Amino acid sequence: MMSFDQTIAQLNQAIQKRLASLVNQERPLSLYEPMRYALAQPGKQLRPVLLLLCAEAVGGTRDNALDAAAAIEVVHNFTLVHDDIMDHDELRRGRQTVYRRWDENVAILAGDALLVLGYQLLSQTDPRLLPVLLKIFSKSILEICEGQALDKEFEGRENISLADYFQMIEKKTGRLFELACEAGAILGNGTPQQILACKQFGAQLGRAFQLQDDLLDVTGDEKTIGKDVGSDLKEEKNTFLMIHARSHATPQQREQLQELCARHLQEQETLQEIISTFSEIGTLTAAQREIDASMADARKQLQALPASAAKSNLEQLIQKIVTRNK
Amino acid sequence: MMSFDQTIAQLNQAIQKRLASLVNQERPLSLYEPMRYALAQPGKQLRPVLLLLCAEAVGGTRDNALDAAAAIEVVHNFTLVHDDIMDHDELRRGRQTVYRRWDENVAILAGDALLVLGYQLLSQTDPRLLPVLLKIFSKSILEICEGQALDKEFEGRENISLADYFQMIEKKTGRLFELACEAGAILGNGTPQQILACKQFGAQLGRAFQLQDDLLDVTGDEKTIGKDVGSDLKEEKNTFLMIHARSHATPQQREQLQELCARHLQEQETLQEIISTFSEIGTLTAAQREIDASMADARKQLQALPASAAKSNLEQLIQKIVTRNK
Repeated sequence: MMSFDQTIAQLNQAIQKRLASLVNQERPLSLYEPMRYALAQPGKQLRPVLLLLCAEAVGGTRDNALDAAAAIEVVHNFTLVHDDIMDHDELRRGRQTVYRRWDENVAILAGDALLVLGYQLLSQTDPRLLPVLLKIFSKSILEICEGQALDKEFEGRENISLADYFQMIEKKTGRLFELACEAGAILGNGTPQQILACKQFGAQLGRAFQLQDDLLDVTGDEKTIGKDVGSDLKEEKNTFLMIHARSHATPQQREQLQELCARHLQEQETLQEIISTFSEIGTLTAAQREIDASMADARKQLQALPASAAKSNLEQLIQKIVTRNK
Repeated sequence: MMSFDQTIAQLNQAIQKRLASLVNQERPLSLYEPMRYALAQPGKQLRPVLLLLCAEAVGGTRDNALDAAAAIEVVHNFTLVHDDIMDHDELRRGRQTVYRRWDENVAILAGDALLVLGYQLLSQTDPRLLPVLLKIFSKSILEICEGQALDKEFEGRENISLADYFQMIEKKTGRLFELACEAGAILGNGTPQQILACKQFGAQLGRAFQLQDDLLDVTGDEKTIGKDVGSDLKEEKNTFLMIHARSHATPQQREQLQELCARHLQEQETLQEIISTFSEIGTLTAAQREIDASMADARKQLQALPASAAKSNLEQLIQKIVTRNK
C-alpha cells in the first residue's frame, strides 16, 4: 500500500498537472501571465486534495473528481489574488503577490478570469451532478465574499465579539473547505448521510485551519510561512487572538498590547513581546483549545465513513494541517 | 397585438422584477448595498431583452429564459463595476460608480459577488441545458476579460490597428451580446441553424453597439448618456475614431488632434473641434459605414428565423440601438 506521503504527492502532482494544462493561451499577456503565475505557486493544494480524498472515501474515483478539484484550487486562487489587493499584502507563498508584481488592474482582471476558469472546469464534470454542484459552488463562493466583506468591515473596530469572528471565518475560510469536502462526496456518489458528514468535516477543518492561520501570523517564521509575519496585526484585523486578548486582558495588558502593535512589527523582539502578552492573558491556550475542539468534531464526522485508505489519509492529513508551521 | 414599446416595457419590467428579488439579504452591508445599487440602476437591459426575444423568436417561452436573462444582466453589471475601477470612471448611468461611491475594495468584492450571482441564476435553468449553457457562459466571460485586458493594453499606444481594435471590441462588447442571443435561442429550443444565426446576429449587433458607443463618447450629451463625455479620449483609449483618424490624418490634422486631446475635454468647444477634425478626416463617415455594415449582417442573420412578433421586435430593437443617443 502506498504511504500517506506518497499518496499526497501523487494527488498534488495530478492536480498540478491539471492546473498546468489550463492556461495555454499566450495573449493577452496582461491576463494570462498573471493567471499562470498565480496557479504555478507551489501551495499546499489542501482543498483539492481534500476533495479527491473525500470522493475516494465514499467509494468514488479520483478521475471523476479531478476537474472539480482543480476548480476548487482555481477558485481559491481567485480569492487570494483579490484578497491580496484588498489587504495590501505584498507576499504570498514566498513570492510577490499579483497586484504587487503587476498592478491592481491586472490583479482585478486576473482574479475575475480565475473565477470564471473555475466555473469552466466545473462545467466539465458529470452533467447529472452539474446542477447541484453549480448551486453549492455559487452559494459557497457568495458566502466567501460575505466573509471577506465582514473581515474588512471588522478591521479597526474594537467591538467585535468572538461570535462575530467565528461567523466571519466560517464563511471566509470554512466555506471553501466545506465545499471541497461536500463536492468530493457528491462526485464520489456518497449517500446523503456521507455527503453531510464530509460537509461538516470540511467546515470544522476549515475553522481549525483559520485559527491555526491566526496563530501563525504571530508565531510563524516569515521564510517558512511565505508571507509577512504580523500582517494581521498591521491591518488591525480582528483575529481570534486580538479579540480574545482584548476581552480577557487587564487594563495594563491591554495598554501594553496597543503600544506593541503600534511599533514596527517586523522586529522579532516586538513580536516576541506580543506573543508573551498573548500567552500571559491565556489567549494562546484558548486558541489551541478551539483548534482541538474543531478537530475533535471533524474526526467525529469521519466516523460516518467506512474504513478505507482514503479515510485513513484524511485522518493523517488533518493531523498535519493543525500541527503545520506554514 | 402589443406594440413594440409595450413589449419592451413588459420585458424590462419582468427582468427588473427578477433582479429586484435577487439581493434580499441585508448584511454584510458593505457587500449587499453596492450590489443592490449596481442592479437598481435604470439601464437599458438590452442584453436580457435580446435573450428573451431570441428565445421567443425560435419558438420558446419567456418564462424558461428569464433566469438566464437576469444572469446576463447581472454579469453585465459585474463587468461594469470592475471596468469602472480600472478605467477610473466616475459616472455610470447618471450616478456615481460603485468604486467612487464606496471604494475600490468594496467595488472589487461587489463585482465578484455579482459574477457569482450570475452563475447562481444560471444554475436555476433547465438542467438538461445547463452543461452547454455553463460552457458558453464561462467561455464568453473569459473572452470578455480578454477584451478588457486588450483594451487596457492598448491604452496610450499609437500602433494599434483597426484589426486589433475589432478583435478587442468583438471580445469586450460583442461576446456578451453574442452570448445573450445564443443562450436565448438555446433556451427556446431553437434548431442548431437558428442558434447559430442568433449567435452571429448578437455578435454583429454587439460590434455595431460598440462603434456607436465610441461615437457617443464624443458626440453624446453628458446628461443624456449618463457618463463623462470624452472619457475615452482622456484615458487615451484606442477607439475606432482615434485609430481611424490617426491613420488617415494629414500630419497637420494629427498634430491638431493631439493638441486638442491634451486640453480640458469637458469644454464643449474642445469637443466640437475634435468632432470637426474627425469629420474632416472622414472618420465619422467611416464609423457610420462600419455600423451600417454590421447592422446589415445582423439583419441578414434574422432571415433564418420564422416570421413572428418576437422577430419583428428584434428588428425594431436593433434599429433603435444604432440610432440611440445614449
